Amino acid sequence: MALKTAEQYMERLFKMRKNIYINGQELDRLDPRLQAGINIIKETFKLAAQPEWQELCTATSHLTGETVNRFCHIHQNKEDLLKKQKMTRMLGQRVGGCIQRCMGTDSMNALSVVTKEMDDVMGTEYHQRFLNFLKYFQENDLVGCCAQTDVKGDRSKRPNEQPDPDLYLRIVEEREDGIVVRGAKAHNTAAPYADEIIVIPTRFMTDKDAPYAVAFAVPGDHPGVKMVVRPALPRTREATPSPIFQYGDVESFTIFDDVFVPKERVFMKGEFMFAGFLALMFAHFHRHSYTGCKPAVSDVLASAAALVAEYSGLEKAHYVREKISHIIGTAELVYATGIASAEASEKFASGTQVPDEIYTNVGRRHAGHNIYHEYEILADLAGGLCATMPFEDDFDSENGELLRKYMQRAAGVPVEDIIRCYRLVEHLTVGDLSGVMQVAGIHGGGSPQMETIALMQRYPLKKLKGVAKYLAGIDTDFTCFERGTVTPKQIMDRFKRK
Amino acid sequence: MALKTAEQYMERLFKMRKNIYINGQELDRLDPRLQAGINIIKETFKLAAQPEWQELCTATSHLTGETVNRFCHIHQNKEDLLKKQKMTRMLGQRVGGCIQRCMGTDSMNALSVVTKEMDDVMGTEYHQRFLNFLKYFQENDLVGCCAQTDVKGDRSKRPNEQPDPDLYLRIVEEREDGIVVRGAKAHNTAAPYADEIIVIPTRFMTDKDAPYAVAFAVPGDHPGVKMVVRPALPRTREATPSPIFQYGDVESFTIFDDVFVPKERVFMKGEFMFAGFLALMFAHFHRHSYTGCKPAVSDVLASAAALVAEYSGLEKAHYVREKISHIIGTAELVYATGIASAEASEKFASGTQVPDEIYTNVGRRHAGHNIYHEYEILADLAGGLCATMPFEDDFDSENGELLRKYMQRAAGVPVEDIIRCYRLVEHLTVGDLSGVMQVAGIHGGGSPQMETIALMQRYPLKKLKGVAKYLAGIDTDFTCFERGTVTPKQIMDRFKRK
Amino acid sequence: MALKTAEQYMERLFKMRKNIYINGQELDRLDPRLQAGINIIKETFKLAAQPEWQELCTATSHLTGETVNRFCHIHQNKEDLLKKQKMTRMLGQRVGGCIQRCMGTDSMNALSVVTKEMDDVMGTEYHQRFLNFLKYFQENDLVGCCAQTDVKGDRSKRPNEQPDPDLYLRIVEEREDGIVVRGAKAHNTAAPYADEIIVIPTRFMTDKDAPYAVAFAVPGDHPGVKMVVRPALPRTREATPSPIFQYGDVESFTIFDDVFVPKERVFMKGEFMFAGFLALMFAHFHRHSYTGCKPAVSDVLASAAALVAEYSGLEKAHYVREKISHIIGTAELVYATGIASAEASEKFASGTQVPDEIYTNVGRRHAGHNIYHEYEILADLAGGLCATMPFEDDFDSENGELLRKYMQRAAGVPVEDIIRCYRLVEHLTVGDLSGVMQVAGIHGGGSPQMETIALMQRYPLKKLKGVAKYLAGIDTDFTCFERGTVTPKQIMDRFKRK
Amino acid sequence: MALKTAEQYMERLFKMRKNIYINGQELDRLDPRLQAGINIIKETFKLAAQPEWQELCTATSHLTGETVNRFCHIHQNKEDLLKKQKMTRMLGQRVGGCIQRCMGTDSMNALSVVTKEMDDVMGTEYHQRFLNFLKYFQENDLVGCCAQTDVKGDRSKRPNEQPDPDLYLRIVEEREDGIVVRGAKAHNTAAPYADEIIVIPTRFMTDKDAPYAVAFAVPGDHPGVKMVVRPALPRTREATPSPIFQYGDVESFTIFDDVFVPKERVFMKGEFMFAGFLALMFAHFHRHSYTGCKPAVSDVLASAAALVAEYSGLEKAHYVREKISHIIGTAELVYATGIASAEASEKFASGTQVPDEIYTNVGRRHAGHNIYHEYEILADLAGGLCATMPFEDDFDSENGELLRKYMQRAAGVPVEDIIRCYRLVEHLTVGDLSGVMQVAGIHGGGSPQMETIALMQRYPLKKLKGVAKYLAGIDTDFTCFERGTVTPKQIMDRFKRK
Repeated sequence: MALKTAEQYMERLFKMRKNIYINGQELDRLDPRLQAGINIIKETFKLAAQPEWQELCTATSHLTGETVNRFCHIHQNKEDLLKKQKMTRMLGQRVGGCIQRCMGTDSMNALSVVTKEMDDVMGTEYHQRFLNFLKYFQENDLVGCCAQTDVKGDRSKRPNEQPDPDLYLRIVEEREDGIVVRGAKAHNTAAPYADEIIVIPTRFMTDKDAPYAVAFAVPGDHPGVKMVVRPALPRTREATPSPIFQYGDVESFTIFDDVFVPKERVFMKGEFMFAGFLALMFAHFHRHSYTGCKPAVSDVLASAAALVAEYSGLEKAHYVREKISHIIGTAELVYATGIASAEASEKFASGTQVPDEIYTNVGRRHAGHNIYHEYEILADLAGGLCATMPFEDDFDSENGELLRKYMQRAAGVPVEDIIRCYRLVEHLTVGDLSGVMQVAGIHGGGSPQMETIALMQRYPLKKLKGVAKYLAGIDTDFTCFERGTVTPKQIMDRFKRK
Repeated sequence: MALKTAEQYMERLFKMRKNIYINGQELDRLDPRLQAGINIIKETFKLAAQPEWQELCTATSHLTGETVNRFCHIHQNKEDLLKKQKMTRMLGQRVGGCIQRCMGTDSMNALSVVTKEMDDVMGTEYHQRFLNFLKYFQENDLVGCCAQTDVKGDRSKRPNEQPDPDLYLRIVEEREDGIVVRGAKAHNTAAPYADEIIVIPTRFMTDKDAPYAVAFAVPGDHPGVKMVVRPALPRTREATPSPIFQYGDVESFTIFDDVFVPKERVFMKGEFMFAGFLALMFAHFHRHSYTGCKPAVSDVLASAAALVAEYSGLEKAHYVREKISHIIGTAELVYATGIASAEASEKFASGTQVPDEIYTNVGRRHAGHNIYHEYEILADLAGGLCATMPFEDDFDSENGELLRKYMQRAAGVPVEDIIRCYRLVEHLTVGDLSGVMQVAGIHGGGSPQMETIALMQRYPLKKLKGVAKYLAGIDTDFTCFERGTVTPKQIMDRFKRK
Repeated sequence: MALKTAEQYMERLFKMRKNIYINGQELDRLDPRLQAGINIIKETFKLAAQPEWQELCTATSHLTGETVNRFCHIHQNKEDLLKKQKMTRMLGQRVGGCIQRCMGTDSMNALSVVTKEMDDVMGTEYHQRFLNFLKYFQENDLVGCCAQTDVKGDRSKRPNEQPDPDLYLRIVEEREDGIVVRGAKAHNTAAPYADEIIVIPTRFMTDKDAPYAVAFAVPGDHPGVKMVVRPALPRTREATPSPIFQYGDVESFTIFDDVFVPKERVFMKGEFMFAGFLALMFAHFHRHSYTGCKPAVSDVLASAAALVAEYSGLEKAHYVREKISHIIGTAELVYATGIASAEASEKFASGTQVPDEIYTNVGRRHAGHNIYHEYEILADLAGGLCATMPFEDDFDSENGELLRKYMQRAAGVPVEDIIRCYRLVEHLTVGDLSGVMQVAGIHGGGSPQMETIALMQRYPLKKLKGVAKYLAGIDTDFTCFERGTVTPKQIMDRFKRK
Repeated sequence: MALKTAEQYMERLFKMRKNIYINGQELDRLDPRLQAGINIIKETFKLAAQPEWQELCTATSHLTGETVNRFCHIHQNKEDLLKKQKMTRMLGQRVGGCIQRCMGTDSMNALSVVTKEMDDVMGTEYHQRFLNFLKYFQENDLVGCCAQTDVKGDRSKRPNEQPDPDLYLRIVEEREDGIVVRGAKAHNTAAPYADEIIVIPTRFMTDKDAPYAVAFAVPGDHPGVKMVVRPALPRTREATPSPIFQYGDVESFTIFDDVFVPKERVFMKGEFMFAGFLALMFAHFHRHSYTGCKPAVSDVLASAAALVAEYSGLEKAHYVREKISHIIGTAELVYATGIASAEASEKFASGTQVPDEIYTNVGRRHAGHNIYHEYEILADLAGGLCATMPFEDDFDSENGELLRKYMQRAAGVPVEDIIRCYRLVEHLTVGDLSGVMQVAGIHGGGSPQMETIALMQRYPLKKLKGVAKYLAGIDTDFTCFERGTVTPKQIMDRFKRK
């Protein structure tokens, strides 16, 4: 059994080289500002160790036959996809939002597919390298983060057109034993407490962009890697140390300051035709993960909204039910797309099971279109107090008794529960994490704009127009429009033709 | 093989007693105003007879083992539900909208479940009666319509509270050999060309409403049944007789003027505790059918929008793609809920496979919330011409040449195709059927309002609030929120407890 | 007093040459299919003759000092704009929608501005010609329609780039005494019963498009003008001949088959730099008219929704009030923009008062974005019966008594009133005019897409960014952002600079 | 001239008794955590002293004829309302959001109206008392805050029905020389640095609620008043000390712990029939203020969105313009309702000019419905960096140069400007104030739910239904629907009748 404990994970972290920076200070991984993020990852170890969670949180490695954490697994069948989705939702509920470890999973799955396809077309040998790395990854129950988004400079220009060539990460030197890369990647969630950074391209590329078509993995404290990080933390709560206040988010702006990557950890090197395929494949697996985590976020918001409405004596009001039903409906619609996507998934040459991309895109887009509105509903139902409630220490002061008196709501609900409920809602609506969660709800996994683009590029529009042509009498043959599983296989085929 | 031909279906129709009224005239089923509706039903016979459609359009009766039209089938497993959904979408594309025969299917499935549950609880013998009727129904490949919606009088009052007791259909006399019923049912799609009318209750009922808790089936021309019908027809097209102009809708306002129903065709008689269960079960199966037919409507609209954009030279414009992607996204979201609902379906005591109700409700609601906006998008992209295009005969007149000259659009598209395309769009946006399809998109299968109510009544809100209680530290045990399959089984259990 | 009677208007019409075509037939203006449209125009004469309406429906000509119908007036001040807006709403309520005569008013006002500006810049003599025409127009109380929208062919190409040069109307010959024009204009509301057709360009033009920069007026039956028209008519009602069933819409596809226009009626001839200015000016005045007529449409829809809710016993239900409040809110928001636009209006060189363009654009856009949703609300609250109600003659047949029995709703409301109410709702939601009104709600006066473009072209974005630059410390001087009245004067100035 | 300087205002503050609490500490008004709020109020003094702002920021007292700060003014005419609206927008742009001083203005104006009406009906002498207080208020250029929202306990119960009678503020003792009150008011913006607290009721009341019908003013440090406050502060910026980082918000949970109010400062004492009138009147003036401040918030958001798009090289992208146009459109629609509301305003018995309530309600509601979406657009266009950008000190550290390198965007934009721009966007989207501004955008001045209720209570629905009744032929007389100015005068009349 290749499962490690939360303690073993932390021990690994604490041994790592100092390369984390906050506010100009160089830190090691013991820094308290990182612990709220680390606490989230720890849950993924803890639950995998509990019998009642094992079916969901562990899997059997197709490589070694050993039991591995599902976050280290390469999906082999429909059931794997369904379980990953469900695990993501359940864990998300438990930590009150993003579980953070899926980025590693999604990038590893993307690499499993694309290294194989590249090898088949180009005669390269990336897939075996990847499998070697995967074996190491699974055996040690490693935590991966994914560094995808380049800083991108002028958004209207391609990588090779930027005035400063480093605005997309690129290979600056090729050596016998590896490559040297330079650039920076933004928005690397969980990077400061990940074992491994998985680096992949962020977009489609042309032959002129070849040096930018690069994928690899390096340890989090690899020489030359600098992480300038930004934590978003819950308020410290002494009086109400609820679970929600243990969890936070840390984002890294990761600089690759001429970093040497040894050959055996390089998974793409200049195969520009596959850069977009890999970028899309990660987005795709990640959007499928979103069909699990976004419903969890909605569950948390709907749950808090329903609780505050109950405590205020408003639970039965028509408009309250209507609004809560909107959040629930969003959760269930998005979750349904993940199920449908697994149902329509396909096995690729590498053996990896790839979810249907249209369902994941419409699901992720629907989530993205609704996230701010869901926060709006919670704030609407909670009333202004979520933004104006006195701080915790005031409740312990000479004014404490009066504050408690005036916090009373529905008869029979202990005022301490009302306070705890409001602390949660405050945290969700105006806390340090609130804005970050909203922005993540738009951009994490690609904004709705990106999903619309992906959707319209991949949807068989010509076939769809056949319906109108038949009905209008322009084409006389009816072929019913079944879009088929418009899976990445087609991208691959497209690339093969080139 | 219990499949009949379209011709056999029509022969049955033409033998029926005159009891159809339009504009005060009594008609038989040969009347030309009914043919556009009949043409739709005929497709369900024709395709079931074509080898490439048989897997989708036929099924094996669990009763007789014979091959039956899928519209006569009682769903036995997940695959049956998935195929019914897909069949509905494919046929919907072919007739440009509602396939009309599903109402019979959905009401028969609902009866299969509820008659069994009633028998188990009440010791009645409805289920065997139902199976006898089903056998007859399947063997003759009958077309059923469902008469559910009572005229309802004052909406703020229950059946027994209405000033006129007949505003909900009720039993006015019980006899040894059957019952006599009086009342009227509105919105009976396809009733004038159905073989059988399946009558079921429209809402939950109390003990005072017992005479209103009634379900039965009678032939379409049964003595005492009067159908005052309203067809919505396409314009007659001589120059462009495209498929779309063959299909239309006919709605019946069906009056039961003291109708005798023989005992063997009565499936509920006063069991008021089961009235709501049956109403909900039909709604439920019907909402699952919507996850097939509504995507078909979206397919037709998106397809027409994409075609008119192509012909206008606008297909690549960002805003055009954005808008079309909205319709596509709606189709795929709604379809995904049907798949998820089948995945989470459960087998009931009768052996009938019942889809998950939360997914069907959120899917149907999403469809209902978007239908007008989808029509808006088509009208938006088509431009005003869909409402102002000269009539067909003008194109055959002395002005024909000039009109053709000025109808030219993107180079290379024959002007006749442009005209045909616009005739389709005109039909969809301003034709006689357009408003009817919009209203049906709101109300058919229950309006979004109804789905919100169903959703909030059935969603395990208490369990959901457990998430917030855990995160806020109010409850210290975490149980992840899995709503479970909130299927009608629970309703049944609820009734059993009474 | 230059007011004519409805009878005088009709006499003029009936004397006109036959040049109207429906279904390939050549008609005169007595044809019954035109009367529902004519009835609307007649209201504008009738009310102007009633003392209590005169302040609203008449004005004092700035040219002659005589009392003229407000539809013939050139707005001289803020009050004129406010009264035009109010008149439009009040008349719209009376005819249940579009009052149809404003297009002439709006194009005349646009010409009053642009002919003057052109003369000032180019040394032409259009303004005096226009004033001569205006005098004739006012003295005879003429009805104008506006032919603006060219058929446009491939939308991605400019006028001069179209394969067929006639896809935008153009000057094909210049003579001493006038010009000859060829082309076609679509969507000419009310053209078949207008005295005069005012023709103006539909877009901005370049020097290569000079022959397309043309404006003029010709009588409705001018030689060479052919109108292929499409009426959208209410159902004929004998039992319930309510006001709403007297009114309809007629749209013309107007072909200019080498039409000679005498010099004194030509108001632009090749001044391509002013083509866009004139197009925009008409759109602008017309969008201001929309701030009157669109609230009227909302008034009708909200009113019908409230009435059907009352009759159904649902008036107090929260969700009913919420939905109706949406329609009311739309009406009042849009109407407010018209008032604000008049408040911020400016007097131009010609003396014409020009409304603020930003307010009219955001108002018209808001209306366009909501129109389908308003219809949706009405259909939602009315229930399916608006689409399935039996036809009128059935209520006079042997089934009449039973139908009346089953149409009963809230106690105390006569069933005849319920039937009348539903006939209105049916007309609004599924009638022949329903789709046309929806499409007009999107495209009439320019679709929301067009308003967004106009808004973003004219909004002082650079100035707006000054706010962010100040707050961010990029620019240290604060100048508060007052967009100023971004009126067409600026367009004019822009043209003057060229 | 009764204008004071910002310094004089601060001197007053610093002399006040300590009765502010944060985190259990008792503070005076010099505490640094209050300064960001104080800085906002100071702007209202500073600008009133600048000649170019005086027309907007000062007014002539109708009481004394002296020049007073417009925030101390009672609106006398339409122009006053228009100027107040404009001033609010301009100042809001300058401080990047809420100007905070309007609450005092709005409550004083409400009192001016209601004290007069009460006197007229009840024979009381509140109005003269109020005028005396107003004179003092104006002469000293005082800053008022408004304490309206009671803590309310169980929302489904009225004041007199709460288990603890103090959950709404009430009179607990009446004395010869005044009253003693007990209770708490939540969400008192700016209270900790206001000179005066204006206390008014929060809802309609019945005779049983008489002790809760109370209005008065006390100085901010009045004996028995305790403010437990919650500041929302910008991050401290040393490297980029831009204007935006000087401003913040402070909310008070104000406890009236048996506070004695001298007679001459009591403006309502048990006149329960006027409690709702006063509550509504404040809401009404405050919603009119919203038509100024909410456009300012939109100006800031649109401005930041446009700037970040420009700096990213995306300004011309269609979807960027579409999204920014949405924010601009919201600003202009809401602003238009304020203008229309002033246009339709009425002078009341006290001489106060009262804006039209329907326009203010639909305007405020539209603002409330869009606020989260506007933040969403900014976050969408800014990209994830607004949430993940390294902290300020990192830019001054050893990594500073690399961070600057990777922050480059469109050529020619200095990287320091890009950083400043992102600091602003970060502040707006994920800063401490961000969530507070969102919640304020929903609840400040009453949530959309409240405006819908107000709108539907006051809209002349019966009159509106007259339109449908005429068109349907139910009523044969047409009276056009002019809702009239549905001003509070009608409430007053309603009360008079009682």
